[in-house]
This record gives sequence, structure tokens and C-alpha cells, in this order.
Amino acid sequence: MSARADRLADRLPQAGIDVLLVTNLINVRYLTGYTGSNGIALVGSDLRTFITDFRYVVQAAEEVDPGFDRRRSAQHLLEGVDEALETGGLRLGFEADHMSVSEHARLRELLSRNELVATSGLVEDLRAVKQPEEVAAIRTAAALADEAFAELVGGGLTGHTEHDLALRLEYEMRRRGAERPSFDPIIAGGPHGALPHARPRDEKVRAGELVVIDWGAQLDGYCSDCTRTLATGDIDSDAVEVYELVLEAQLAALEEVEPEAVGRDVDSVARATITAGGHGEHFGHGLGHGVGLEVHEAPRLSQLSDAVLAPGNVVTVEPGIYIPGWFGVRIEDLVVVTADGCEILTSVPKELTVVD
Amino acid sequence: MSARADRLADRLPQAGIDVLLVTNLINVRYLTGYTGSNGIALVGSDLRTFITDFRYVVQAAEEVDPGFDRRRSAQHLLEGVDEALETGGLRLGFEADHMSVSEHARLRELLSRNELVATSGLVEDLRAVKQPEEVAAIRTAAALADEAFAELVGGGLTGHTEHDLALRLEYEMRRRGAERPSFDPIIAGGPHGALPHARPRDEKVRAGELVVIDWGAQLDGYCSDCTRTLATGDIDSDAVEVYELVLEAQLAALEEVEPEAVGRDVDSVARATITAGGHGEHFGHGLGHGVGLEVHEAPRLSQLSDAVLAPGNVVTVEPGIYIPGWFGVRIEDLVVVTADGCEILTSVPKELTVVD
Repeated sequence: MSARADRLADRLPQAGIDVLLVTNLINVRYLTGYTGSNGIALVGSDLRTFITDFRYVVQAAEEVDPGFDRRRSAQHLLEGVDEALETGGLRLGFEADHMSVSEHARLRELLSRNELVATSGLVEDLRAVKQPEEVAAIRTAAALADEAFAELVGGGLTGHTEHDLALRLEYEMRRRGAERPSFDPIIAGGPHGALPHARPRDEKVRAGELVVIDWGAQLDGYCSDCTRTLATGDIDSDAVEVYELVLEAQLAALEEVEPEAVGRDVDSVARATITAGGHGEHFGHGLGHGVGLEVHEAPRLSQLSDAVLAPGNVVTVEPGIYIPGWFGVRIEDLVVVTADGCEILTSVPKELTVVD
Repeated sequence: MSARADRLADRLPQAGIDVLLVTNLINVRYLTGYTGSNGIALVGSDLRTFITDFRYVVQAAEEVDPGFDRRRSAQHLLEGVDEALETGGLRLGFEADHMSVSEHARLRELLSRNELVATSGLVEDLRAVKQPEEVAAIRTAAALADEAFAELVGGGLTGHTEHDLALRLEYEMRRRGAERPSFDPIIAGGPHGALPHARPRDEKVRAGELVVIDWGAQLDGYCSDCTRTLATGDIDSDAVEVYELVLEAQLAALEEVEPEAVGRDVDSVARATITAGGHGEHFGHGLGHGVGLEVHEAPRLSQLSDAVLAPGNVVTVEPGIYIPGWFGVRIEDLVVVTADGCEILTSVPKELTVVD
């Protein structure tokens, strides 16, 4: 864990700062291991300090990497920063994407002897490249989610409401040890599947329609993310064609996921396949996103993404076709970029599957 | 719903602004009804504008109060603000507690002709006083949570792990229609109950101990919150004495909850009772907090709170005694301040109850 803070410290000179004040709790967790709800970290070349309040002292003693000096402060933790820095004249970076204007004003009042410098994405960039133990955690979360999915589908979809199926899927993940779902599961049958962010309804899944299921488990803080589209009986040939087109696009994009590939280029491969099939205007979202301690993080695979993939990136590959008022198809895998390509972490079959 | 924006507009002159830019999604929901994940609102004396991106246009059409002009913008919604304001020379308030330093810098770039003014708590102050339909929503959430609790306890606690009991309780709330729990439920047996923020463990509840259960349901966005401490068989007389002391403090504090009462004074009544009983140092948190669209909101009942209670405030009253290494007791009700006192919204009995 300490190695993470070391890597961060190595990057500080390039960012023009001496010390980074880490206030985003997910970044704090990444660097220190702390999972509570009030804690901050200071990282400099020779500085590793974690600060929390009295409520979390016991938890911090158990969780926080021993490479960090652990301190206790007033409940408003920013009050402890100046003292922890010990000296003046420092350029102190703060996380401008996560600190509110109010907190920033307060911090400026509290720090008389050090200069505040806005930074963006320093820890997030580190987080984008997973260490082997992180990939292992995501792999375990994905396997757990896959098992829960198999259990759900084994019980049949037709005749159950989307809401009840989503609840069951969530329960099956929790029962297997997931802390929570990575996000509220999507179960969307028939025309409802044409909404990429559909919420499960109190409507029963019918026989002979396509059902989009998008779900993930969070385990030890790490998320999984997967989508499958299943058929509840015979579906018409147009829908089968669309399914095969999405699958073709997904497989083509997976071929492109490798070190040095650029996010926008990977997106383009899937998009070109879908456009050639006549459904370009029905694929209204990006191809994929990074997954880790958050279910949406760097790097992105989209038409606007300059991200250059590197071994250890974990990303989703999830093209979709959404035909308003009719149906939707999305097929999503979670993959880790390897030395020469990628490895798929999700294991559910992708050929069109008919279920009860 | 429109009435809420009207009340907000009435307060803007006093805050020294012409228009408030509302970016906090819970505040946006309160004012407009929108429940999606990307939306902002502008409220001025004659201005009611809601802005979202293409992904949420359908949802906004269904949800957003028709008193608001609905607009569609680029995905980075702040880009739509200047155009929606139409004129220049305005003092535009922003929510400084919720807007990041990065967003603020971006907004400053985008707004050439209007002045930005930091504000704090304008919508939160409105939210602290619930309208009748909000109290009704909280009442329904509390009743649902109480039913789930009865179901859980009816199945017995002893021999089940805290984790499994928490999962069951959550499931029983979800099955009854809760969107989610208000927070991760706490089930803490024996010495674990001495941690006010205990997380459920993979340890079985034993016979003859006190078990702290703190739970709530979220329904139509509104939260409930309740705590009971149950005995799994005979417990020793010291523990019974502590239980009775907490209950006495809780009942005394409830007597003080009425219009014009000050947060700190209500806290003091419970604290004085517990201190007189010799456990002052074992009550390490505030007496209570407001509950609504968030499970922790204004007003607070604590030693530092200047809040003056008013009819429509919904607050918890939850004294506790925590004896490290031995046990904890907390008894919490959710109440609404009425014209001449308060009404309790939680219905689970409070006398010391022995369960399996």
C-alpha cells in the first residue's frame, strides 16, 4: 500500500507541488487503506500523514498503512493540516475536483504559511493502472457477480417484475459477500430496454422479448460491471440481427484493447461496425469506462477520449443498440489490459441465450 | 412543488442575490421533482429554469414541475447557465458547500456578464421545515421500516450473524417497496454495541446480550431513522439500569421538543439525565439530527446547535450510553415538531424487550 503513496510522491514535482492534501475519500482509501467516512491524507517526498477524528481512531489503527503517521484532529479535519505540515513555505496541492468552494475558503484561512495550488486527477491517474492485487480483487468481484446472475437466470425471468428480479439479483450478490451492488442493477424488458439508464419497474417480464441486465458487485471496495441481453423465448429476426451486430461490434472492439491503443480509436471500431449495420444513430453512449474503487473512473473509451491504454487498466467494453419503443441490446464485458492485449474478467456466455 | 421555488425566490434578496444556481442534486430534486443524476436549476424572482442533458430529457418531462422552463444543454450543464439567464448584470448565487473549486473556476469562465456570489444553506434551510406531504412520506417510510423490523425480530436474533441479520432487515425493507435503506443498517451485539458506528460483523449474536439495531428506509426519496436495543435473554442488572437511564433521558428530551426550543437545550436535557446517572462520559455524540431527503440534515440537536425548532422540523432523538468492551444502549425515535410539541413517527415499543 505504501508503494502507492511513493508513486504519488514521485509525481508531485511535475505537478509543481511539494505536498498533496488528499480529501477525496476514495483516494484516501486507495493510498492508506482507510475505509471510514472522515479522514484525509498528506503526501510529500518525506511526508506520509493520515488525519481522522476521535470516532475513527480505532478503525484507523486497524486499517491505515503503517507507513503513515496517524494523527487525531478536531472533527473538521482541515484544522489539523497546518500543524501536520510542520513547516511553512510549501506549495500545498489540493484536489480541486473534490474540494468545495466553502472548504477551500476555510482551508485558506487556516493555512497562513503555505501556498495552496489546485491539482486535478493526480491520484485518479495512479488508480487507473491497477496493481496485481487490485486486478485480483476485481476478478473476485466479477466472479461473485457472475454466480449471482446464474442463480437469478436459473430461476427464470418471465412473469417476475423487473423490480423483484433486480432485488433478487442484489440479494444473491450480497448473500455471497458483496458489500453492495456496484450500482443499482438494471433489468429492462422489451421497449424499456431501449433506455440505456432504465430503472427496474413493477412490470412483469414477458415471454418472447429481449431483457437487458446490467449489474455488478462491490467487494473489498472494488467494483465489477457486466451486461447481458437475454431472450425470453423466440424473438423476431430483426431483433436477432441487432443482437448479432452488437456482439460483432463488441468482439471487434475487444480485439483493439491493448497497450498504446487510444480510447477514441477503440470506440471507433465498435461504432464503425454498428454504423455499417445501419444502427449508428442507435448507439448513443461511449463504448466503455474504467472500473476500480469506483464503477466509473479513468480511462474512458469514447469518441472524445485521448486516453492511451496501458497494462493494468481495467475497462468495460459495452456497445449497445437502442431502438426507441421497440427494444435494446447491450453486451458488456469487463477486461484488464495485459502486456499484449486484454483478458476478459467476466465469464457469462455471450451468444444469444433463450431463458424462461 | 412550485411553492418551494416561490419560497426560495422570496429569500434571495435577503441573501443579496438575484438568482440562485442550484447544483446539489438533492436540492434540485426538492425544488423541481427531478430524480436523475445530471440536472441543475435556476431560481430568481421571475425565473424558474431546469437544465439537463439529452439522456434525461424524457425523465425530466415526466418529473420536473411544470412551473419550470425545461432546457436541454451539453452534458456539462454549467455551459447552459449563461444562455438561460438571458440578461447580464445579475448577482448569481451558487451553492458554495456543494460546488467544487474546479466547477467554480469553469463557471467563472463561462459567465462573462454576471457576478458570482457564494451562498450557503439557502435550500437546506427550506428543507428543514417539512410540508405536510413530506411528513406523510417520512411517516410512510417509518411505518415500512417498523414492519421490516418486526419481521426480522420475529425470526429471532440469537445464532444469526450480524451481517446476515442486517442483510435480512435490508431485504425486508426493499421487499416492502423501499428504494434502499436510508443508510447501511447497524446490528451490533454485546461489546460491539459500544461502537456508535458499528458495522455488522460475521459474528453470531449470542444469548443474554444487548443488541443495538439502527435502521431506516428510503421511500420516494424520504428517509426514516430509528434505533432499538433489544436483549437476547436475561441480562445483568447493570445493563438493565443503563437501559432504563437511556430511556429516561430519551423520554425527557422528547418532552422538550417543541417550537422555539433550541437544539442545544434539548440535547442538554438528555445529557443532564445521563450525567446524573453517572454515564456522562459514555454519551459521546449529539442527541439528534434532522431527517428528510437526506438522513442527516438540518436542524441538529447537539451541544453546539443554535437551531431554533419550528413546526415541520423532523428530527431524531437518540441518546446513547456506550461502555467500551462491555455493551451499548441507544434508543432513537423520529419525531415531527407540531404546533405545541412533537409527534413520534416511529412505532416500535421502547420498554426493554427480550427476544430470541
